[in-house]
Amino acid sequence: MKYGIVAFPSKKFQDLANTYRKRYDSHYSKITPHLTLKEAFEADEKEISKISKTIASIAENHAPLNIHASKVSSFFPITNVIYFKVEPTDQLNKIHQDLQQQLNIGEPKHVFIPHFTIAQDLTETEHDDIYGQLRMIGVDEQEVIDRIHLVYQLEDGSWTTYETYRLTGAE
Amino acid sequence: MKYGIVAFPSKKFQDLANTYRKRYDSHYSKITPHLTLKEAFEADEKEISKISKTIASIAENHAPLNIHASKVSSFFPITNVIYFKVEPTDQLNKIHQDLQQQLNIGEPKHVFIPHFTIAQDLTETEHDDIYGQLRMIGVDEQEVIDRIHLVYQLEDGSWTTYETYRLTGAE
Repeated sequence: MKYGIVAFPSKKFQDLANTYRKRYDSHYSKITPHLTLKEAFEADEKEISKISKTIASIAENHAPLNIHASKVSSFFPITNVIYFKVEPTDQLNKIHQDLQQQLNIGEPKHVFIPHFTIAQDLTETEHDDIYGQLRMIGVDEQEVIDRIHLVYQLEDGSWTTYETYRLTGAE
Repeated sequence: MKYGIVAFPSKKFQDLANTYRKRYDSHYSKITPHLTLKEAFEADEKEISKISKTIASIAENHAPLNIHASKVSSFFPITNVIYFKVEPTDQLNKIHQDLQQQLNIGEPKHVFIPHFTIAQDLTETEHDDIYGQLRMIGVDEQEVIDRIHLVYQLEDGSWTTYETYRLTGAE
């Protein structure tokens, strides 16, 4: 079964991201807007209870995440993904690193660039056109996310939450 | 903000339900297959932390739920909803009742009939046609669900998990 670890922002922020995702993101209906902390990995049902305990202990050592989505950016030409760029912080890097090292499942495919995807699977022309528009509109949202979620994927590509973990650490 | 309390079955069961929902359920992309334990209710962000604590204490007093989806049924003529009927049990009635009484938010709109919706918003002709087919195929799935989820709704109608609660009680 395929699992991932994500942080969902506030309803207000998700509603904002969805105004774009609805039109431009092929994964719009598969999961609500999120910041990926650990990319999709395979685990079976026996492994997952151990994994879940590890995530719980990591969450106990991390404070709620301060998030600042500061501009619209793109991964082009690597992929045609347009996203809300989240300012990198030691806090975000640390939780990503802890999840990566303590779970020790699979190498990360990419360098960790915290973001909320708002468009993907566009043609190159669509990408250039939409990226130009969205970059001008921009984004400037700050908030605190106090929990993270372990999610799993169904056969149709949609994601269900397996468990939530509150970030209750001091920093 | 609109909240609800649901139980998600196993991935296998969700995949089965989605083979029908994909074609027949207008809410297919809004939430993955689930059994509703408490219908949608309004709460603000201050109220929800108290509500969440109450749900946590209820979850501690209930054991994992034994679910038996035994046949395909329909709420016609009340609504054109086709569903996997879940055999009523004292356990399911009790947790529904506890959530209703201890949260004390809104009267239930319907008698509690535990089910997984697989089709809705059909015309009467579609309903009759599809119900006939699905009733013949039937369903017979038994499983144990060991957690419940508090979910909230975004403006586009989709649902995100706010918190999960493990059912850790003795019975």
